Parts: sequence; C-alpha cells; structure tokens
Amino acid sequence: SDLIRATLFPGDGIGPEIASSVKQIFNAADVPIEWEEHYVGTEVDPRTQSFVTWESLESVRRNKVGLKGPMATPIGKGHRSLNLTLRKELNLYANVRPCYSLPGYKTRYDDVNLITIRENTEGEYSGLEHQVVRGVVESLKIITRQASLRVAEYAFHYAKAQGRQRVSAIHKANIMQKTDGLFLKCCREVAEKYPEITYEEVVIDNCCMMLVKNPALFDVLVMPNLYGDIISDLCAGLIGGLGLTPSLNIGEGGIALAEAVHGSAPDIAGKNLANPTALLLSAVSMLRHLKIDDKADRIQEAVLKTIAQGKYRTADLGGSSKTSDFTKAIIGNL
Amino acid sequence: SDLIRATLFPGDGIGPEIASSVKQIFNAADVPIEWEEHYVGTEVDPRTQSFVTWESLESVRRNKVGLKGPMATPIGKGHRSLNLTLRKELNLYANVRPCYSLPGYKTRYDDVNLITIRENTEGEYSGLEHQVVRGVVESLKIITRQASLRVAEYAFHYAKAQGRQRVSAIHKANIMQKTDGLFLKCCREVAEKYPEITYEEVVIDNCCMMLVKNPALFDVLVMPNLYGDIISDLCAGLIGGLGLTPSLNIGEGGIALAEAVHGSAPDIAGKNLANPTALLLSAVSMLRHLKIDDKADRIQEAVLKTIAQGKYRTADLGGSSKTSDFTKAIIGNL
Ligand SMILES: CC(C)[C@H](C(=O)O)[C@@H](O)C(=O)O
Ligand SMILES: CC(C)[C@H](C(=O)O)[C@@H](O)C(=O)O
Repeated sequence: SDLIRATLFPGDGIGPEIASSVKQIFNAADVPIEWEEHYVGTEVDPRTQSFVTWESLESVRRNKVGLKGPMATPIGKGHRSLNLTLRKELNLYANVRPCYSLPGYKTRYDDVNLITIRENTEGEYSGLEHQVVRGVVESLKIITRQASLRVAEYAFHYAKAQGRQRVSAIHKANIMQKTDGLFLKCCREVAEKYPEITYEEVVIDNCCMMLVKNPALFDVLVMPNLYGDIISDLCAGLIGGLGLTPSLNIGEGGIALAEAVHGSAPDIAGKNLANPTALLLSAVSMLRHLKIDDKADRIQEAVLKTIAQGKYRTADLGGSSKTSDFTKAIIGNL
Repeated sequence: SDLIRATLFPGDGIGPEIASSVKQIFNAADVPIEWEEHYVGTEVDPRTQSFVTWESLESVRRNKVGLKGPMATPIGKGHRSLNLTLRKELNLYANVRPCYSLPGYKTRYDDVNLITIRENTEGEYSGLEHQVVRGVVESLKIITRQASLRVAEYAFHYAKAQGRQRVSAIHKANIMQKTDGLFLKCCREVAEKYPEITYEEVVIDNCCMMLVKNPALFDVLVMPNLYGDIISDLCAGLIGGLGLTPSLNIGEGGIALAEAVHGSAPDIAGKNLANPTALLLSAVSMLRHLKIDDKADRIQEAVLKTIAQGKYRTADLGGSSKTSDFTKAIIGNL
C-alpha cells in the first residue's frame, strides 16, 4: 500500500485524548499515514535504562518518523528521564519549533513569526557533574565541532528550504569564549555556504531583550542546548504558551520525531477537556518533514480557522469546549 | 562635614554627559554626596590587569559606595574586561535590578514590578574553559555553597527590608542536579529563616515563559549568574530596555556600586542626545542603599514625572529632547 508507517506515542495523562483527536483529524483528511502505537512500559527496560521500551525505539528507527504526546517521567532512581532517553537513543540532534502568532488568539504580540532551532544532544545537558570539594560543585558544558556543524547545517538547510531570509546564532561567547566561541565558528563556516541567507550573531541576554520588545526582528534562531531550551519557551510564551506550539526533533539518519512539549496535565486527564493544538501542529510539522505539504496546509488551516472562529475553544484558551467538540469543529473546517 | 564621599566613574561614550546630568540633579536636590571622579586609564594597570586603575578601586573600597556610567572595554589581548575586573576586585557578589513599568511610558506590559537578584561572581562566569581534544571544548560552571548562601541571604534580607512577599529561586536543577541543586539547597536553608516570605522554585525555561505571559506573577527573583544575566535583560525589555533600568552591585564589606548597564553609545556621544534615566535611577538605588530615602524618593518621582509628562523625552524614548533639557525638566519637577 501507499501508507507511510509512523510511530505514535500517545503518552500519558491527557496524551491518549489528544492523540485520538490527531488520529480522527488525520483520518478525516485522508492522510496516508498508518500509526504504530507504543506506550511507555510499566517497568524499566534494561536495554534503555528507562521506561521507554526498546521495541518502541526500534519502531521509530524503522519508520524514521513518529509523533509523541506528553510523557511524565515516573519519580524514582535508577532510570533516565523519558525525554532525555529518546533524545539520546535516537540521536535527536536538533529541536525545531516554528512559533507564529495565531490569528484570532490574542496575546500581547501579534507579530511573531520565527523558528527556534536548538542543539539537542550536548552543551549544558552533558550530565557530567561532580563535587570538587565539600561545598564546591561543577557541571561541564561540552561543545563539539561535530554537533555544532550538524545543527548549523540543519538550520541553514531549513532556512533555505522554507524561504527564510536570516539565521541568528545565539551565544554568550563574550564569556564562554571557548565553548560558545566554537559554536559560532561552526555557524560561520556553514553560513559561508549560504550567501543568500543573512547571518548574524546575537548575545543571549540581548536576544531575550529584543524578543520581548520586538520579536519581528527575528527569523531563524540557532543555538546551543540550554539557550534553546530557554528561548524556545520564551517564544512559546509570546504566542500563548506550550499548548499552542509545535515541536519537531530531527535525528541522525533522517529520523523525525514530532512532539507536544507541554505537560501531561494529570488533573484534567480523561475528562475530555484537553487542548490538542500543540500535538496537532506538531503532527503538521511531521507532515511537512515528509513533504506531504498539501495535507499539512489543509490541517493547519483548519486548526487555525477553528481557533480564530472562537466558537470552540478549550478551557486553557478561555473557552469551555470539550476536546471532542473542538476536534469535530476542526474536521468541519477541513 | 556631613557629606558622604562616593566614587563616580563617568565612563566613556555618553558616560560623561549622563554623569553630568546626575551631578546637576543631585546638586539641585541637595543630596549630601561629594563625588570622587575616576576615569578608566589609557594603559593596562599591571595591578588590576585591566584599564581599571588601582586608585579607582581603592577609592571605592574607601568610600564603600560608587556610581558607574557605561565603560566600553577596549579591544585587544592581555587585559580583563572592565566590568568583570570591577566585579572580581570588589567582590561584587549580587547584582540587584528593580524593574517596574514606568507610568506614562507605554510598552506591551503595564504590570511589571519585580526585582532580579543575580549571583555575580561564579557559575558560568568562572572563566575555566579548555579544549579536551581537537573539536571538543568544555566550560566549567562552578557553584559554591558560600556564594549561593551569600546571594540567597541578600535576596531574603532585601525582600524583607522592602516589604516584598515572595522570593523565587530560578534554576535548571532537573538537568544540572549538582550545581543548580546546591544553589537551591542554599536558598531553601535561608528561606527557613524567613517564614514570613513565600519561597518557590521555578525552572528557568518556564520562568521565561511566565515572565512574558504575566510578569505580575513574580516579586523577587534570585538566581545563578548566567540565568540572572538573561532574565534581568529580559525583564528590562518588558519595561522598555536597558536605558530605563537601574542596577546596583553589592560587594563584601558593605560596598555598593550602582551602574547603568546600557552601552556607551559612541555614535551619539558628545551630542547632548543621551538618556540619563538608567544612571539616574541607579543613583537612586545607591541613595536607598545609603538609607537616604527622602532624596531617593524625591529624585525618582521627578524622573518618573518628567517621563510621564512626555514633553521632554530623549530620542531613544521617541522624543527629540536634548539631554540638558530633559535634565532641566527633572530639576523643575524636583
Ligand atoms: C523536561 C526537561 C528536561 C526538558 C529540557 O530541559 O530539555 C524540557 O524543558 C524541554 O524543553 O523539553
Ligand atoms: C558585558 C557582559 C560581560 C555582561 C555580563 O554578561 O555580565 C553584561 O551582559 C551584563 O549583564 O553586565
């Protein structure tokens, strides 16, 4: 058949409900995707040292594409966080977040239209930490030429493919001259190969100030891990929060794992109250990655139209709609 | 005499002009301060390894209080940045930035009223970096119990003295468990001694999202060096930028050095166009530190009133006033 197999991690909490909304909308839009569903295990899998099962990783490796709902890492020792396990095991080296003002959903900003691209494997997330002497601890930030070039290549490639004009590398190389300095050096090397794209470097503190004053100054931003963590959430805040922002992780060998980055909201789980927008727009990002742009456009337009119409909105957006009614309204707008 | 001696670093670029504005306004308000002026040297002082002279450091150590305009670090090798030299040599361990919406100066936010308190001596600013092998570099983030307790003590002391309700410690201890974990542990220890103040912990990415969505959620924020660098500039952006935000550095032995944290704007230097607000409000912070609250109130009110009246505004605030006319207007409002 012509169906593309994709791994689906519904996740926990509100995950299954919002995943069900995505499945219904994909069906209604005749998207040629067949889902392979995987849940987090109830015990630590020794092969992953985590509740993420080996089988589910194999499924993503085989399909090369997946969609993930929120997963709450169970509390306790002796296992790795679910998100960090996925990033590590699948070598998800770039986290891509398109961030644009949603027409009809009002925040203090109506002029956001940017993409954050975060290095996702090293930097401040090395996990290397130790106590030097009592009362003195250190963490290591690791920057490599290989990972910096890789994410920079992805950023410029993406910018060009999407018809974007400018890439800004975000850094603090005035203080961390060696680590952030190497990151910038790699970005500059890649920039040389893309003369049609304007390249600039912005210090992170100044970047945050500019973002809150005038986000329209930015187009594509590329940065080391922690800065990406911070700035991608800041940007999500500008347009209304993590419930509205899609995210796509790019891995070695062409793997792409889309994910809703908000929490699993256990307090409203199973109550038909959750907002599926972030997972839906993430699924749209996945479709664009697969170059199924016609379906991506159709679904994205239906989602944005439904939010803009304002009649069906979930509680987090100030409305009182059920997840299922919001989903039906989107299907109606397809 | 009853005069308090204070060191004044006019700085360079627009520094001398805005320092002159402060001197005039302090005179007009009969502030009992006698300035001891120091300029950055034209050569590296071997005792400071920087263009900051030993004499000027001695002046701050003797007076225990100072005010600093913008200083551009000359480019070249073999010397330390001016700001980092001052922080290091004077052991300026806490950077305090009151950040509030200015009545009459409209931004997207009108509800900002918070204080950021930044650890200013260690963390990501350790300066410890090296190449591990070709293409692999590392930077060390150092957190100590001593410096964390010291800045936490200052934050709670400040919160109590200013009648503030809440202290939020900002961190990424879910990733940097040892370093940020130690920072949080120290904050918790200090929090126990201040039962009247609510204590909470907020992850930095979430904090930035909350700040841009609803800054009124925050009161006093305390954090390690780099997070403070980022968040204090983000907050400055909410109310209009670094040209409007005061900053005060607290050092060991009761030293306080107030400073305008904006740049020296060489393009408009000497043209009577600069905005002295950040330096003025920093000088006000200095007065509050000296417990000269009546003069602090009087000057702060005159500055805010002048900005709110809108008749005299410098170019950066969308007006066309000269520095000298803005200064005269403030004196008129005293
Ligand atoms: C939960 C946490 C470990 C994670 C991170 O810091 O990367 C989250 O903030 C994210 O951005 O996905
Ligand atoms: C100029 C730079 C070294 C400095 C810092 O990072 O501390 C600045 O951003 C600040 O906040 O004073």
